[in-house]
Amino acid sequence: VLTPAELDRLCVVLVNSRNPLNIGAAARAMSNFGFPHLRVVHPYAVAFHEARSAVNAGPVLIAAEQFEQVAEAVADCSLVVGTTGGARRDLHEPLYPLEATAEIVRAHLRSGSRVALLFGSEKVGLSNQDLSHCQLLLRIPTRTEHPSMNLGQAVAIVLYELVSNELVRQTEAEAPRAPAPDPSLAQPLAQPLATAGERERLIAVLLEALSFNGYAHRATDALMEDKVRRLVRHLALTPSDLREWLGLLRQLLWKLRATKSPPPQD
Amino acid sequence: VLTPAELDRLCVVLVNSRNPLNIGAAARAMSNFGFPHLRVVHPYAVAFHEARSAVNAGPVLIAAEQFEQVAEAVADCSLVVGTTGGARRDLHEPLYPLEATAEIVRAHLRSGSRVALLFGSEKVGLSNQDLSHCQLLLRIPTRTEHPSMNLGQAVAIVLYELVSNELVRQTEAEAPRAPAPDPSLAQPLAQPLATAGERERLIAVLLEALSFNGYAHRATDALMEDKVRRLVRHLALTPSDLREWLGLLRQLLWKLRATKSPPPQD
Repeated sequence: VLTPAELDRLCVVLVNSRNPLNIGAAARAMSNFGFPHLRVVHPYAVAFHEARSAVNAGPVLIAAEQFEQVAEAVADCSLVVGTTGGARRDLHEPLYPLEATAEIVRAHLRSGSRVALLFGSEKVGLSNQDLSHCQLLLRIPTRTEHPSMNLGQAVAIVLYELVSNELVRQTEAEAPRAPAPDPSLAQPLAQPLATAGERERLIAVLLEALSFNGYAHRATDALMEDKVRRLVRHLALTPSDLREWLGLLRQLLWKLRATKSPPPQD
Repeated sequence: VLTPAELDRLCVVLVNSRNPLNIGAAARAMSNFGFPHLRVVHPYAVAFHEARSAVNAGPVLIAAEQFEQVAEAVADCSLVVGTTGGARRDLHEPLYPLEATAEIVRAHLRSGSRVALLFGSEKVGLSNQDLSHCQLLLRIPTRTEHPSMNLGQAVAIVLYELVSNELVRQTEAEAPRAPAPDPSLAQPLAQPLATAGERERLIAVLLEALSFNGYAHRATDALMEDKVRRLVRHLALTPSDLREWLGLLRQLLWKLRATKSPPPQD
């Protein structure tokens, strides 16, 4: 069973939620299964206010934190998981069934890492921009003819799976089917990963260097930003490795700044 | 996986539901997981009418059957299962966790029996009278401090468990431990990692950029080379990601070369 400390390391992040009933339902399921931390990103303000001030709003909803950007909402989390109906073909990240994802999430919570679970808006789910913050994606096994779930129900099912498979495993504890450790694995499992916030610092330095044109850095376009974020996300960096990369890249940036500026190229 | 014929033998029975949104949410989850038969017993008439005539009412809701008594609604079913928060002490029937109940329900559906799954009203759940029709009771593993679930979420979780554990079992039966996703790794294991030779190309570009001093590249010292090699090794890069990094780092190197050379610093 997940301990209170482990439950405490998971954040449910609702992005662009529009319906106060769904926000309320998500909070209720969190309370049912013992997960205290709800974060909402750029919610429809009236919906969030309404959900929060409902007479039956529980402690989860009252303690919910509000953010303007996904990046801020996941900054202290080292594993960021997105949810999707899975109908999209343009996904860059591995798409796992919920059951497998739950194993990964529990392993991270156990190792002391914070985990963010992202749920998109009722209408369109998570955007490509939102997904660019996710290291892996999960899919609830719905029918292909009708994959799109109600938000509150999707949250409930994911949290149930996190809590319950655990119970099943406990029951079957005599025959533990421990995931075979992968030989090609670079990271020892014990090492926690860097947080999303730490990764963003690395991304910022890379983008500044890549957009350096001799004068100052121009705004990088969104495509490049998504690309760099995806590449950095793939790296599975530990905090200490991340610091070393940051040091190296800053050296490169200083070199670029130190050289005389050529005339602008356009 | 449950076959269409097996899915067809399960009836979700909502007893005394009061909220049209909950009836609609239950029907939506049924559609998500492929269960076509919804029955409602003595619903609040306005609620049922409202749910059914909603513009987005799907086929499940439109085909829903209405009954006045539980006895009529379950008359053609050989297994009748009730759901409960489990806080009650006056239960006469065995109370199983959801996971175990799902196994029993699937076995009945396979054997050709019809199964009814009863869900009570939002306020009080199933009455003693309702429970008297049930052969076994299931409990969703919610916290004892907050056991009572939203009706639509409870239906979604029970149907998910019926469908999904099945998938897990199938996967395990076919390929013992399909790509055991690794906790610390964002990459699916199916993807091979880049070779050491490919990594060396990346290392070479990095070292050249780091040792660039305005003229040409001087020999980097061995310590730096070891450090960069170690950092790159940790990255667990796939071949395609490696190529992308190589492209980005070459851009940086070109920028360095394109700038005017400052005087040598020593």
